[in-house]
Amino acid sequence: MTALIGIDWGSTNMRAFRFGASGEVLERRASPRGAAGLTPPEFESVLTETVADWTDGTTPIVLAGMVGGRTGWREAPYLPCPASPSALAAAALPLDTALGRAVILPGLSTRAENGSADVMRGEETQLLGAGLTAGLVVLPGTHSKWATLEQGRITTFATAMTGELYALLRHHSLLGQLASEGAFNEHAFARGVTRALDAGNFAPLLFSTRADVLLGDLPPQAVESYLSGLLIGGEIAGFGAKPATLIGNPQLVARYETALRLAGINAITIIDGDHAASRGLWAIGECL
Amino acid sequence: MTALIGIDWGSTNMRAFRFGASGEVLERRASPRGAAGLTPPEFESVLTETVADWTDGTTPIVLAGMVGGRTGWREAPYLPCPASPSALAAAALPLDTALGRAVILPGLSTRAENGSADVMRGEETQLLGAGLTAGLVVLPGTHSKWATLEQGRITTFATAMTGELYALLRHHSLLGQLASEGAFNEHAFARGVTRALDAGNFAPLLFSTRADVLLGDLPPQAVESYLSGLLIGGEIAGFGAKPATLIGNPQLVARYETALRLAGINAITIIDGDHAASRGLWAIGECL
Repeated sequence: MTALIGIDWGSTNMRAFRFGASGEVLERRASPRGAAGLTPPEFESVLTETVADWTDGTTPIVLAGMVGGRTGWREAPYLPCPASPSALAAAALPLDTALGRAVILPGLSTRAENGSADVMRGEETQLLGAGLTAGLVVLPGTHSKWATLEQGRITTFATAMTGELYALLRHHSLLGQLASEGAFNEHAFARGVTRALDAGNFAPLLFSTRADVLLGDLPPQAVESYLSGLLIGGEIAGFGAKPATLIGNPQLVARYETALRLAGINAITIIDGDHAASRGLWAIGECL
Repeated sequence: MTALIGIDWGSTNMRAFRFGASGEVLERRASPRGAAGLTPPEFESVLTETVADWTDGTTPIVLAGMVGGRTGWREAPYLPCPASPSALAAAALPLDTALGRAVILPGLSTRAENGSADVMRGEETQLLGAGLTAGLVVLPGTHSKWATLEQGRITTFATAMTGELYALLRHHSLLGQLASEGAFNEHAFARGVTRALDAGNFAPLLFSTRADVLLGDLPPQAVESYLSGLLIGGEIAGFGAKPATLIGNPQLVARYETALRLAGINAITIIDGDHAASRGLWAIGECL
């Protein structure tokens, strides 16, 4: 018997969890048909194809992520922080589907002291599923999220475009042209991290990638690792090195762990991304 | 009578100056055939096509810029700072051409306290032609150069990839997708500059471009101006706001002037780029 169907529907893929009565994950499935480019009828088809046999038409379905974005199935406006599981559940948008009643969760918004805004959509389920009531949670990625939790609520967060900047610099910039394929180079990575931490910023150091190669100080095979170190070190310097819980892709999380240790932080907890997403979907679903 | 032919040969274009006996510019010409992609015989053809009628075969020719790079006409290795006009002249690489004897000037290298390197190639002529014996000279551009002069020598410099980052973010990133065409928006530019100056860094603010648009705080027509402000403000914050001489494209220089004023700097001098390049080529040519 299925107590809840939870769907984490991002831009590039969709992950589905079938929960039992006490929140245990009975089954999980994934589809490569992410929200980017799907039309509303296509969302409905993908949902049906993926999980129709999990429901008798009465099982509640919770949808999170870009499925609720402006170009998603239906737009669920951003909910301002602070946000608890029950606040997200209360703001969820009801939706009739071929599989019965579903809800689309809103994303979250916040505003910094200088007035600048920030938004997330989908990451809130992982953050609320991290098992923390208070502390800093970092989700490294294309758009890394640094979120602060207090009393089980997400109180504020900030985004660094580290992964996207890395891809832009690697594939479209003059720096990327200098790079050769090479295995991950720990030494070059650590040098990049340390320099960016010392400078408090990666930007004034980016061009050193080119200069170091031209002067023979950096092998072309180590350009990717050095650049990754500069950007991750700069992200940590920009937001402040603090004890943190890291959630996400294990290879990327390992780089952030190394960089945080270079910044003098040893209190680091690592949580699997799939596990956190499923825990968060269940916690929100329970409040519906 | 031509006393010297000076050529500023960058990646994307070539500018030629014919100097009289006291260093006055008698004539100037330009070619769109920049150093990027030219083979050595093509460099010689372009030079001949552009300035053959300026020389009787005995006029000295000074070539500066990417013409001396690794993929230029012939490589002139980087000269470490500090660098004076006479040091550049002494390190120039002699070259026999169809128009007689020429020299290719080296670029400059420097090394920061943290060990990271920096290089320039071509900008040194503008810096030495700024008419300063001491002070900070900023050349805004694809790769902005911040150089310190002491006793008529370039003692150290640093590069910010501001123009290249702007182009990457505008044309290849998620932020650029949000932008609509629009006139320069002074208010959005100033907001970007101020926020980056306050944060000491543009990176943690980049994503605010997207969030501010999604929440209705930034019109899509103002995205370009805001992003430009963030990057220029971040460049100034990264290198430190100080009284400066600005050299370059008038439209871009005007943005840097505005940003420096927002950073509280009013001692700003502006010099035309063509004028500075010709003065620098003459100063170095005189030492040959």
